[in-house]
Amino acid sequence: MTRRRTGDAKVDTAKGGSMWGGRFAGGLDPFFAEFQKSLTVDHVLAFADLEQNLVWSEALAGAGVFTPDELASVHAAIDDVAETWQAKGVPVQDPAEDVHSLVEREIVARCGELGKRIHTGRSRNDQVATDLRMWLRARLGGVNDAIHAVCRALVAKATTHAADPMPGYTHLQRAQPITIGHHALAHVEALFRDRERLLQATERMDECPLGSGALAGTTARVDRDAIAAKLAFASGPTRNSLDATAARDHLCEIAFVCAMTCTHLSRLAEDYVFFASQEARFLRFGDAVSTGSSLMPQKRNPDAMELVRGKAARVQGALLALLGTVKGLPMAYNRDLQTDKETLIPAIAETEACLRVAALAVQHAEFDTAHCAREAERGHLNATDLADLLVQAGVAFRDAHEIVGRAVNRAIELGVELQDLPADERRTLLPQIDVDLRQALSARTVLERRSVIGGTAPRNVAAEARRWNQLLAAFERAAATEIE
Amino acid sequence: MTRRRTGDAKVDTAKGGSMWGGRFAGGLDPFFAEFQKSLTVDHVLAFADLEQNLVWSEALAGAGVFTPDELASVHAAIDDVAETWQAKGVPVQDPAEDVHSLVEREIVARCGELGKRIHTGRSRNDQVATDLRMWLRARLGGVNDAIHAVCRALVAKATTHAADPMPGYTHLQRAQPITIGHHALAHVEALFRDRERLLQATERMDECPLGSGALAGTTARVDRDAIAAKLAFASGPTRNSLDATAARDHLCEIAFVCAMTCTHLSRLAEDYVFFASQEARFLRFGDAVSTGSSLMPQKRNPDAMELVRGKAARVQGALLALLGTVKGLPMAYNRDLQTDKETLIPAIAETEACLRVAALAVQHAEFDTAHCAREAERGHLNATDLADLLVQAGVAFRDAHEIVGRAVNRAIELGVELQDLPADERRTLLPQIDVDLRQALSARTVLERRSVIGGTAPRNVAAEARRWNQLLAAFERAAATEIE
Amino acid sequence: MTRRRTGDAKVDTAKGGSMWGGRFAGGLDPFFAEFQKSLTVDHVLAFADLEQNLVWSEALAGAGVFTPDELASVHAAIDDVAETWQAKGVPVQDPAEDVHSLVEREIVARCGELGKRIHTGRSRNDQVATDLRMWLRARLGGVNDAIHAVCRALVAKATTHAADPMPGYTHLQRAQPITIGHHALAHVEALFRDRERLLQATERMDECPLGSGALAGTTARVDRDAIAAKLAFASGPTRNSLDATAARDHLCEIAFVCAMTCTHLSRLAEDYVFFASQEARFLRFGDAVSTGSSLMPQKRNPDAMELVRGKAARVQGALLALLGTVKGLPMAYNRDLQTDKETLIPAIAETEACLRVAALAVQHAEFDTAHCAREAERGHLNATDLADLLVQAGVAFRDAHEIVGRAVNRAIELGVELQDLPADERRTLLPQIDVDLRQALSARTVLERRSVIGGTAPRNVAAEARRWNQLLAAFERAAATEIE
Amino acid sequence: MTRRRTGDAKVDTAKGGSMWGGRFAGGLDPFFAEFQKSLTVDHVLAFADLEQNLVWSEALAGAGVFTPDELASVHAAIDDVAETWQAKGVPVQDPAEDVHSLVEREIVARCGELGKRIHTGRSRNDQVATDLRMWLRARLGGVNDAIHAVCRALVAKATTHAADPMPGYTHLQRAQPITIGHHALAHVEALFRDRERLLQATERMDECPLGSGALAGTTARVDRDAIAAKLAFASGPTRNSLDATAARDHLCEIAFVCAMTCTHLSRLAEDYVFFASQEARFLRFGDAVSTGSSLMPQKRNPDAMELVRGKAARVQGALLALLGTVKGLPMAYNRDLQTDKETLIPAIAETEACLRVAALAVQHAEFDTAHCAREAERGHLNATDLADLLVQAGVAFRDAHEIVGRAVNRAIELGVELQDLPADERRTLLPQIDVDLRQALSARTVLERRSVIGGTAPRNVAAEARRWNQLLAAFERAAATEIE
Repeated sequence: MTRRRTGDAKVDTAKGGSMWGGRFAGGLDPFFAEFQKSLTVDHVLAFADLEQNLVWSEALAGAGVFTPDELASVHAAIDDVAETWQAKGVPVQDPAEDVHSLVEREIVARCGELGKRIHTGRSRNDQVATDLRMWLRARLGGVNDAIHAVCRALVAKATTHAADPMPGYTHLQRAQPITIGHHALAHVEALFRDRERLLQATERMDECPLGSGALAGTTARVDRDAIAAKLAFASGPTRNSLDATAARDHLCEIAFVCAMTCTHLSRLAEDYVFFASQEARFLRFGDAVSTGSSLMPQKRNPDAMELVRGKAARVQGALLALLGTVKGLPMAYNRDLQTDKETLIPAIAETEACLRVAALAVQHAEFDTAHCAREAERGHLNATDLADLLVQAGVAFRDAHEIVGRAVNRAIELGVELQDLPADERRTLLPQIDVDLRQALSARTVLERRSVIGGTAPRNVAAEARRWNQLLAAFERAAATEIE
Repeated sequence: MTRRRTGDAKVDTAKGGSMWGGRFAGGLDPFFAEFQKSLTVDHVLAFADLEQNLVWSEALAGAGVFTPDELASVHAAIDDVAETWQAKGVPVQDPAEDVHSLVEREIVARCGELGKRIHTGRSRNDQVATDLRMWLRARLGGVNDAIHAVCRALVAKATTHAADPMPGYTHLQRAQPITIGHHALAHVEALFRDRERLLQATERMDECPLGSGALAGTTARVDRDAIAAKLAFASGPTRNSLDATAARDHLCEIAFVCAMTCTHLSRLAEDYVFFASQEARFLRFGDAVSTGSSLMPQKRNPDAMELVRGKAARVQGALLALLGTVKGLPMAYNRDLQTDKETLIPAIAETEACLRVAALAVQHAEFDTAHCAREAERGHLNATDLADLLVQAGVAFRDAHEIVGRAVNRAIELGVELQDLPADERRTLLPQIDVDLRQALSARTVLERRSVIGGTAPRNVAAEARRWNQLLAAFERAAATEIE
Repeated sequence: MTRRRTGDAKVDTAKGGSMWGGRFAGGLDPFFAEFQKSLTVDHVLAFADLEQNLVWSEALAGAGVFTPDELASVHAAIDDVAETWQAKGVPVQDPAEDVHSLVEREIVARCGELGKRIHTGRSRNDQVATDLRMWLRARLGGVNDAIHAVCRALVAKATTHAADPMPGYTHLQRAQPITIGHHALAHVEALFRDRERLLQATERMDECPLGSGALAGTTARVDRDAIAAKLAFASGPTRNSLDATAARDHLCEIAFVCAMTCTHLSRLAEDYVFFASQEARFLRFGDAVSTGSSLMPQKRNPDAMELVRGKAARVQGALLALLGTVKGLPMAYNRDLQTDKETLIPAIAETEACLRVAALAVQHAEFDTAHCAREAERGHLNATDLADLLVQAGVAFRDAHEIVGRAVNRAIELGVELQDLPADERRTLLPQIDVDLRQALSARTVLERRSVIGGTAPRNVAAEARRWNQLLAAFERAAATEIE
Repeated sequence: MTRRRTGDAKVDTAKGGSMWGGRFAGGLDPFFAEFQKSLTVDHVLAFADLEQNLVWSEALAGAGVFTPDELASVHAAIDDVAETWQAKGVPVQDPAEDVHSLVEREIVARCGELGKRIHTGRSRNDQVATDLRMWLRARLGGVNDAIHAVCRALVAKATTHAADPMPGYTHLQRAQPITIGHHALAHVEALFRDRERLLQATERMDECPLGSGALAGTTARVDRDAIAAKLAFASGPTRNSLDATAARDHLCEIAFVCAMTCTHLSRLAEDYVFFASQEARFLRFGDAVSTGSSLMPQKRNPDAMELVRGKAARVQGALLALLGTVKGLPMAYNRDLQTDKETLIPAIAETEACLRVAALAVQHAEFDTAHCAREAERGHLNATDLADLLVQAGVAFRDAHEIVGRAVNRAIELGVELQDLPADERRTLLPQIDVDLRQALSARTVLERRSVIGGTAPRNVAAEARRWNQLLAAFERAAATEIE
C-alpha cells in the first residue's frame, strides 16, 4: 500500500488528513508539514465551511451527483459535525492541514463514499474565498457595533458637555476656546466616516465565489445564482473565476478600514492622555480604566488609551503585510495568500477590542469642568476675537492681526490676559476700540460668536449632539429590526 | 521699525511673504525658513485658492466686510492674478512661505487695504483643507480616466482573444486551460473595484471645510451653505470645525485606493513579465514599450511592466507615510500635516502614470495565440477533467483524484500527455472509462465544460467582454455628458 | 478592607496578581483587565525574569536589604519556582497581569515578607527591558543558526553545481549563461550580510538596563557593573536611565534584520518558484516540500517557497508596526510599548521558521542539469560574447552592440541561434570576423571567459564554494567552542 | 538607415541618447519614453560616473582596449565634461534617458570612436551599482555630521542644565524628578546608536561592484582589485556578480537607519512640543524656529519640531517602499530597481534636514529653569522616595508601596504634597517614620539619591556630559584629520 503523505499515524487511520496524495510517494518533511498547516488559524471558518458544504452538496444534487436520499445522508453527516463542534468546540490541534480537509474528513467519517463525492467540481481555492467572505460578513458586524459604542460614549459626553468650555488647541498651543462637547463630536465625525467605509467594503465583497473551481470555473452543472442566494450573498455570484479565487483586495480594504479606525482612535487617545496629564488636568480616568506603577505609588496611568495608540501601529502593520503579500503575485491563487488570514483576523479582533476599550475610556473619563472653564480664559485664546473687534472698528484684518500680536507680547510681559491689560496700555496698544474687554472677550462670548454651521457655539454643539443621538438610534433600530 | 521675519530682502519689499509677524522680533533661521516652506509643493493649489478667494470675499461681502464696489475691486484683483499666472505660470521660486501667503500678497499688491481684509474670519487651516479637496476632486478624475484606459485595453484583448486558449496557473504551475480573454477580464474586475473605491472616496470628501476657521468655526457671519454650493461641494459644509481642519482620513483613503490600484497593476505586470519570458513566450512586447540593454545586444526587456511593479511599492510607502503622520496627532491642526501634500500628490501622479503605462503595455503586448494554444494542451492541465470522467463513470471524486494522480505520474514517466497514454496503460490505470481521451480531454472541450457563470468557456468570455464594452461605453458617455 | 483591583477571586486570594493597588478602590473593568494583560505574550520571559531576580536579590543583599540568610531563602524560593515551571510549564492562563507580577507573587508565596522586598529599587520598566534583552540574546542565536542552515544548503548546491551551466536572467529575460553554483552563492552573499547585521544588532543591545528604575535610576545602593557582569551583558550597564527604560530601537533594528532576511528569502523563493515552473523546468521540488491540489490531481506546487514569500510581507509589516509604535512617544516608558513583544516575538519566530523551510526547500530542489545546460545555449545568451569578438576584431563596442543587435533580429527571423547563422548571413551581418562561432560562443566558452573576481567561470565558482565551506565551518567551530 | 529609438530629433543628432538600438525599429511611445527616464533623479550621480569612467578606461587600457595615447584622449574628454558640468551644472533636462547614457554620449562627442569603446565589458547594471555606492559614501558623511550637530546641541543643554531639576514622566504622568541635562542625554544615547548603525551600514557596502558586468562578470581582462582601490572601496571588489548587480539591501539598511534616526527625532520632538505647551511651560522656542498663525495673533507654534515629526513618517514610508520593491524580485537586475534612487535620495536629504532643524530647535529652546524646578516638587513625584524611607524603617517594599499609595490619595484630597501632610495625618498614615519630610523628599535630595550609574543625580549627569563632550570632540578631531 502506498505510504501516506505525513508520518502521523492518526492521519493514516483517518484517511483524509490530506486532500491530495495520488502523485506523492514520500512523506512531507515534518517541520514543513507543521509550517504549512493553517488549521490553528483557519479553524474559525469551520461553521462557514459546514454551511457552505450544505449548500454545495445541494447544488451537486441538482447536478446529479447525489440522489435526494444521498443528499439527506450527507446533510445528516454535516449536521452531526456541526452539532458535535458546537458542543465540544472545533478541534484546533487536529492533524488535518486545514479546516477544509478537516471538514471533508469528518463528513467522510460519517457518510463514507458519499462524502468522497462532496469535493466534486470544487477547489479549496473557491472554498476558502467563500468561507472567508461569509466569516468576515458576520465578524465585521461586531466592528460596526463597536464603532457605535465609541460614538455613543462620545455623543453622551457631547450631550453632557455641549456648553462646557475648554481650551482648544492647534500645534498643542492654546488657540481658541471650544466646548468639551465640540471636541467629542469631532471624533464622532471621523469614526462615522470609518463606519461608512466599513459598510461599503462589506457590500463590495458581497459576491459569492463558490463555483469558480480552482481557477477556471467549475465543471459541475450547478446553479451559481441559487448557491449565492442560499449563502445570502446579496450581489450574486462573482463574474470571473480567476479573479474570484485570486483577489484579496477586499481583505486589504478591510485592513485599511481597520487601520484608519485605529488611527482615529489613536488621535483620540493622544488627546485624552494629554488631557489627563497633571499639566492639563482636564480629565481624570476612573479606576476602571487606570493602572498604577509597580514602583511609584502615586501613579494613575492612562494605560487604556496608550494601549489603543500602540495597537494602532500594529493594525497599520497588518495592512502593509497584506498589500505586500498581494503585490506582484501572478494569477491566480498562490500559496502566499494563505498568510492573509493570520494577518487579517487578529487585526480585526484588535480593532474591535480597541474600539471597546476606547468606549470604556471615554465613559470613565471625568472632565473637571470648572478647571476646563478656568483654563479656557487663560493663554490669550481670545486674541483672534480681539482682532475681530478691531476689524469691526474698521481696521483691515491683516493690520489687526499685527496690532493684536503686539498687544499679546505686552500682556505676556505684564503677566496678564488681554482683557486685563491696564487702561493706559490699552489706550496705547488698542486706541481703535473702547469696549468692555472682560465682557467682549469672555470665553462665553467667544464661544457664542462661533455659531456658524460646524462652529463651537454651545447651541450648535447641543443641536449636533441631538442629531447624532437620533442618527445612532435610527441605525441601531434598523440593525435590531434586521436581526429580528 | 520692527525687523521682518525673514532676512530675504524681497520679502521685506513685498510686505506679505508671511501672514504672521506681530509677535515676532527676530528673524527665522534661514535654514529653517527654507525647511518649513511649502510653496514648491502646494503651488499646485494656486488656482483652487484663487477660486476660493473669490467665493470667500463674496461671503465676506455678505457679512458686511466689503461693499459691493469693494468686492468688485477685490474680484478684479483676483482675476488679474489668475490671468497673470495662467499666462506665465505660478511663481514656484517665490519667497512666500506657502501658496496662501503668495495669493494674499498678490491680491494685496493689486487692491491694497481691501486685500488685507480678505483673511477676515479665515485661517490657513480651513483654507488649505478646502483647496486640497477642490484640487483632489479634479485630479482624481484623471485617475479615473486612466483606470478606464487600462480596462479599455484589457477588454479589447478579451474581445480579440475570448476563445484563444492558453495555460492557466495556480502556484505558477500549469493548472487548467483558460482563454487569453478570461485572463484579461480578471484584471478588469479587480481594477473596476478600485474605480468604485475611488468614486466613493471622492464622494466622501465632498464637503466644504471653508468657514471652519482655525479650529473652532469662523466668527464672520457667512453663509456656509452658499459657500459650499458655489464651490460645488455636493454634500454641503462640514459639520464640525475641529474635524474639518484636522482630519486627513480622506487623504489616507485616496492613498489606499492608489496603493490598491497599483498593487493590482503589479499583479498584471507580474503576469505579463512572465508571459514575455523566453520560457513562456506567450506574448511579445512591441518596440513602443520595450527597452534594450547597454551591454547585451539581444535583450528586449519588459521594462514598462517592471517599472509599474516597482512604483507600486512606492505608492504603498506613501500610504504608510500618511497613516504614520496622522497616527497619534492631537486635535486639531498640527504642522506635521503639512507633509501630507508632498506625500500624496506624487503618489497620485505616479498612480495615474502607472495606469497609462500599463494601458500602453497591454496594447503593445502581442499574444502568440498558436503557441499559447499548443501549450494549453501540455502539462497535464486536463487532469481534473479526467477525474470528472471517472466521476461520471461512478467513481467518487476523492478516489478519482487519487487514481488520476497515479495516471499523471505514469504519463510523466512515459513522457506523454494523459490523452496519449498507451492503450495498455490506460486499461491498467483507468479501467473505469472507455472514451476517446484525445477528444474528451482536448483544451477546446475542457474550456467549454466551464460554461458556468464566471467560467472560462469561450462563449462566456465573449459575453463578458461585451458586457464590459457596454459598461465602459456607458460610463464614458455619462462622463462626456457631464463635461458638456 | 479595601476591595482589590480585579474582580477575580483568585487574584484576591493570591494577594499579588497586581503590583499596584494602594491608590485604587474600584476594580478594573473586566474587558479592559483582559485587554491590558500581557501574560499570554510575555510568559516567554519567565526564566529570564527568574534569573534576573536571582541577581537582583543578590544586589539588594549587597545594599543591605537582605541578610545572607534571607538571601538564601529568597534564592531557594526562586529556584523552587524555576523547578516547578521547568517541570510543569509556565502558567500562561494565570490571572496575573504580566510575567513580572506572576514571578513576584510566586516568590512571595514561597518566602513571604522577604519576597515583598524584592521589588525594592526596581521597576517593571527596567525589569522588562532587561528580561527582553536576555531573551533576545538567546533567541537570536537560533536565527543565526538558521541563516547558517540555508547558507549550508546553498553552498552545498554550489559545490555540486559549480560548473553546471544554466541561463542567467535580468528582467526575467535570458541574459548570459551562468552556473547553477554561481546563482546559489549570490544568495549566500546576501544572507551573510544579514547575519553580520544580526550580530551587530545583538552586540549593540548588549548593555544591562537593570538598575535604571522606572525612569531616573534606582535608589538602591547596588553595584550595576556587577549586576551586568552576572547577567552576562558584555558591554556593562546602560548609561542613561531614561534611555534604558524607554528605548526600543534595538527591537526595531532586530525587526529590520528579520525583514531584510525574509526579503532575501523571498527573492530566493521567487527564483525557485520560477525554476520549478513547467516553462523553466530547471528544478523539481522533492515530495518532502511539495504539496498537491484538492481538485487538480496533476499538481505539484512549490508551496514551501510561496509561504516563505508570503511570510516576508508579514515580517515587513511587523517592522512598520514597531517603528510606528515608537514614533512620537514622549520620554520615558509609555504603555504603548507593551505591544512591542506581541509584534516582535512572532516576527522572529517566523523568520527562523522561514529560514529552516528555505533550507529544506533548497535541499530538496533537484536541478535537471542536462536541461539547464541545454537551455544555457538557447535564447541568444551569447550575444554579448559575439560583440566581444567584434571588439577583438577592432570594432568599437558601441558599434559592435548595434551590429549584433541586427544579427540577433535576423537569427530570430530564421529561428536559429547566433552560432547557427548560415554562412552567407554571417558574411553579410558579421564580415569582420571569421571564427568557429559554435566553439567561440558555446556556453562553456562563454562561462570561462568570465573568470574575473566575482565572475561565473566554473573555476571561480568552485573556489568561492570552497571559501564559503571553510568560512561556515570556521564559524560553526567557533560557535561550538563557545558552547563548551 | 535604421530609425533611432526615440522621435526626439536631438537624440538622433547626438547619436547616443540611448545605449541600445540595434534590435529595435519602432520608436518608444513618447509617454513611456518620459516615464522610464531617470535622468531627473540619477543626475546626482554624474560626477561619480565620470570618476568611474576615468578608472574604467584605465582598466580597459590595461586590458589592451586603449593604447596609452588613446587613454590620454579619453581622459581629456572626461576631464572636459567634468569641467563643463562643474561650471554650468549637469544638464538635467537633457533627452538622454539616464546619467550613464548622457556621460557616454558626451565622451563620444569629445573623442569619437574612442568613446564608443568605453562601455566594453561593462553594463549599466554594475555601473549604477558602483556610482550609487560612491555617491552614498559621500552623502552619508553629511548625515553623520548632522547627527553630531544635534548631539552637540543636546550635550550643550546637558552641560548647562546638568543640575537643573524638572519633572520626569512615564505615561505622560509625573513620575520622578530628573534633571534637564539627564533628559537631553537620553536622546544623545539613542542618536549615537543610530550614528553607529550608519557607520556600519556604510562600511558594509564598501565593496566595488564594477567589473561584474550585466550579471555574470565582465569579459574584459581588467584588474578588479586595482579598480576597487582606485575608487577607494576599502573592502575590495564584490565576490559574486549576480549579487553585486542585483542586491539592494544596503539601500534598505540605509533607509532603515534614516527611519530609525527620524523616529528618534520624532520622540525628541514630541517631548519638546509638550514642554513648550502652555500647560507645561518648561521651555520657549526662540523666534528663529517659531512660527505664527495667519489668523490667531497670539500663537507661537513649535513648527520646527512638528515638521520633524511629520517627516519621520515619510522616511518610514521610504523604507517600506524599498523593502516592498525588493521583495520577490528574481535574480538578477530588474527594472523595478530603478525606483530605488527616487525613494532613497529624498529620504536621506530629509533625514539630514530634520537633523539640522532639530539641532536648531534644541539650540533655540530656552528652558525656564525656575519653573521647571518648581514643578519638580509638585505632583507627588517623591512618592517612591517616601516608600524608600519606609523600607529603611523596616517595611517590606511591597507593603510600603501600598501605604504610600494611600498617603497619596489623602494628600490629593487635602490638596497638598506628601511633604506637606499635616502632622496628625502623617502619624496616622505613616507611623513608621519620623523624619523631616520637607528635607528628605525635596527634589534636590530625591535627585541625589539616584547616583547609581545611569542615574539622574546632578553629579552623574555632569560627568556624563563631560564624557560626551570629549567623545564628540574626539570624533570631530578624527574626522578633521581624515579630511586633511
